[in-house]
Amino acid sequence: MNRQQLIEQIHLQKSYLCVGLDTDIDKIPPHLGKNISGMLAFNKAIIEATLPFCVSYKINTAFYEAMGASGWKLMQQTLEFIPSTHLVIADAKRGDIGNTSGMYAKAFFDKASSGLSFDAITTTPYMGKDSLEPFFAYKNKWVIVLALTSNAGSADFEQQTIGSKKLYELVLEEFTKIGTPENLMFVVGATKAELFTEIRKYAPDHFLLVPGVGAQGGDLEKVARYGMNNDIGLLVNVSRGILYAGSGSDFATHAANEAKFIQQQMEKTLNLKN
Amino acid sequence: MNRQQLIEQIHLQKSYLCVGLDTDIDKIPPHLGKNISGMLAFNKAIIEATLPFCVSYKINTAFYEAMGASGWKLMQQTLEFIPSTHLVIADAKRGDIGNTSGMYAKAFFDKASSGLSFDAITTTPYMGKDSLEPFFAYKNKWVIVLALTSNAGSADFEQQTIGSKKLYELVLEEFTKIGTPENLMFVVGATKAELFTEIRKYAPDHFLLVPGVGAQGGDLEKVARYGMNNDIGLLVNVSRGILYAGSGSDFATHAANEAKFIQQQMEKTLNLKN
Repeated sequence: MNRQQLIEQIHLQKSYLCVGLDTDIDKIPPHLGKNISGMLAFNKAIIEATLPFCVSYKINTAFYEAMGASGWKLMQQTLEFIPSTHLVIADAKRGDIGNTSGMYAKAFFDKASSGLSFDAITTTPYMGKDSLEPFFAYKNKWVIVLALTSNAGSADFEQQTIGSKKLYELVLEEFTKIGTPENLMFVVGATKAELFTEIRKYAPDHFLLVPGVGAQGGDLEKVARYGMNNDIGLLVNVSRGILYAGSGSDFATHAANEAKFIQQQMEKTLNLKN
Repeated sequence: MNRQQLIEQIHLQKSYLCVGLDTDIDKIPPHLGKNISGMLAFNKAIIEATLPFCVSYKINTAFYEAMGASGWKLMQQTLEFIPSTHLVIADAKRGDIGNTSGMYAKAFFDKASSGLSFDAITTTPYMGKDSLEPFFAYKNKWVIVLALTSNAGSADFEQQTIGSKKLYELVLEEFTKIGTPENLMFVVGATKAELFTEIRKYAPDHFLLVPGVGAQGGDLEKVARYGMNNDIGLLVNVSRGILYAGSGSDFATHAANEAKFIQQQMEKTLNLKN
């Protein structure tokens, strides 16, 4: 999915919600069964229930890897439930030297090799620009680079000062040299909403993937106020708040209601923009 | 495997070689078959041929993920060929917020959940100390944190200056606050051998996992001279130089010869130390 299609989808759905499929075998409703089949049924129901209210899904690969090879199969089966109208992100935080990153790119972008074809992958910038270049080599795919995260530990390195800027600002500056608004996004945590104004100086036109609304304490209205650009430029992710809104047999209805509630808040922020 | 066992194994084998299983379907000898079975046969033969000359194996997860779910199965089957005398590292470069890192720890440390039980995992420090804490919660497991890597891109962030030190030095300083020489190692590239003296000021007793000897241009003798501590404290990884030493039906003999050659160089450096 390209940038223009994503923007059109946001206006069509009146939403910039990304639903995070952090599917935890210990948290899904018990009636589904605490096994891979139960997780698959859960994902299918969540996707069907939330499709009208979001524009993207984010698969948190850790939750699938924790189930080993069958978890990878589950990831593949889950992708098949998501229509091509919705941007599908592998939240994998990958990054390594070039030839290894090339293999990770195959794993998440090249269906012929791995059975998986995501639209986007999250990556970690620590090893520098050359470490992520193989991901940028794929056409019509997105590289989403970690910039400023919402955890307390972001103070340890991300917010440390290098010369006149913070490390995460240097990450923004460096990666905008090799990526464009057409193939590069950044992860910026919602709990640091007041910093979005500064971040937009480095990445005015790039989409930002924003986790941390809900369970992690971020505020949607602030994110929109400080982070939205003329093309909207935001994908706000909510995982647990939607997935586990209900725990009974009507969990999907609760998930739909929660996703709809967030979509309606988003619609308000979009109307303010117009 | 604990630290004392690792040190004993190094003295027994007269080697601190880690063989990197970067098994590439496009590089294995054609007679094995360009498929998962061929990759498994390749790994089995390489492990059997190199066991006497090394103390550790490192599985580069990217090469397995590129094959999808069956690649994860291959990783599991490969682990079964490696005896408990040898330290097994998942070179996975993982790291995320706490609850997600907990899932990655399950994926690589908890056999009951994922079918995989590695001794160690490589991790990325960007998101800060709290992002890697769940890995440290496992007993008798090792967390190997990226510090200074051997690629050109290490100049972009790792070697940038924060206050009076480089980012990678800050990483060493911060993670030695939550890890000990019993459960924490660092990745330091062989191509920066002259920096090992400085690195040892921050991590005098920790093991260092050193990639970059061979294909990436690092020099074993320099790594030993500047990096070795009283407990040796080094695991030097070689991947392509061993795996693809031969490409015919005698590839395993070539791999054994190459591993033996490196082991003999290592034995000399160990003798110099004694």
